[in-house]
Amino acid sequence: MPSPIEFYFDFSSPYGYLASTRIGALAAKYARKVTWRPFLLGAVFKVTGSGPLPSQPLKGTYALRDMPRSARFYGIPFRMPSVFPIATQAPARLVYWLEGQAPEKVEPAVLALFRAYFVDDRDISEPETAASVVAGLGVDRGQAVSAVNDQAIKDRLRQETQSAIDRGVFGSPYVFVDGEPFWGTDRFDQIERWLATGGF
Amino acid sequence: MPSPIEFYFDFSSPYGYLASTRIGALAAKYARKVTWRPFLLGAVFKVTGSGPLPSQPLKGTYALRDMPRSARFYGIPFRMPSVFPIATQAPARLVYWLEGQAPEKVEPAVLALFRAYFVDDRDISEPETAASVVAGLGVDRGQAVSAVNDQAIKDRLRQETQSAIDRGVFGSPYVFVDGEPFWGTDRFDQIERWLATGGF
Repeated sequence: MPSPIEFYFDFSSPYGYLASTRIGALAAKYARKVTWRPFLLGAVFKVTGSGPLPSQPLKGTYALRDMPRSARFYGIPFRMPSVFPIATQAPARLVYWLEGQAPEKVEPAVLALFRAYFVDDRDISEPETAASVVAGLGVDRGQAVSAVNDQAIKDRLRQETQSAIDRGVFGSPYVFVDGEPFWGTDRFDQIERWLATGGF
Repeated sequence: MPSPIEFYFDFSSPYGYLASTRIGALAAKYARKVTWRPFLLGAVFKVTGSGPLPSQPLKGTYALRDMPRSARFYGIPFRMPSVFPIATQAPARLVYWLEGQAPEKVEPAVLALFRAYFVDDRDISEPETAASVVAGLGVDRGQAVSAVNDQAIKDRLRQETQSAIDRGVFGSPYVFVDGEPFWGTDRFDQIERWLATGGF
């Protein structure tokens, strides 16, 4: 049984969103599962000295053009959110909470939360809003709001973020296939060959 | 007659090297020429606050793995140079000199200089070494060495670097197709669709 593909992402990452819509089908094609690993890019930026794309001279301007263009290229619905970037503790904690409560809802929750932010322009940094999104999947809304403030869940997200940094994750999306790291939606061609051949 | 594809690169850029081996065939497929535009990434870094990839926390470690892997993915010969990065005034000036003297030798000179550095591990930052490489194309070696120290050529490179910054170029390779900017070897799929369709 092959190992799951580990998919690291921040819910405020446009490229993470684009990749999230494609990783499931790619994994399934090679009989792999996906382990969904939200983390906090802000904590990573403290290590790398980097910052959100739009704040970066020259690169930020390019990114704001490249993001919607890449979405069009892949045929993925995308609208730049009116508030960007956002803090992503709430949606990230909901994912780790669901992993324990209803693991079959993790993937639909990730996709629904990303879609709420990058298609419907809903501010998923708000616990109430993020909880409403996952409630649409048949999860209890009140329990979801509580989970966002649960200390064990908070600790879990902190640990996963530290683990990501320890593994060298510096951006979103960041994918591991059998330990091999790939950064960016634009490494999906290499990921696919790695899955097909076992490495090159 | 369609406009040439403008190909901006720094001779010390591994991804610039990889892209340089592919841009000519891609352009030819769509009846385009390539305008070769070496520039100094160091001057860009002063604007963006960035620096050479290997110096960047986490990202640098990844890049040193991704560069040879990307070369294997595309089937391009590649060896990480023993001295990296290097100053690239000498090879860049030779390109602008050749553009005036023997424009048909520009593309072979770019490819030969990149190959000398990223395959044969020759330090092309040295004017004598860079001149030797272009001398292999039938250019006078002494004139090439002189060109590296020619004030008009120096000014040209400075102007081209400033022009690149003014156009938003923040990395290497950076490609314009009819004014549309694309950063990175990993945008060749989008470049090709842009060439094929006129935009998307």
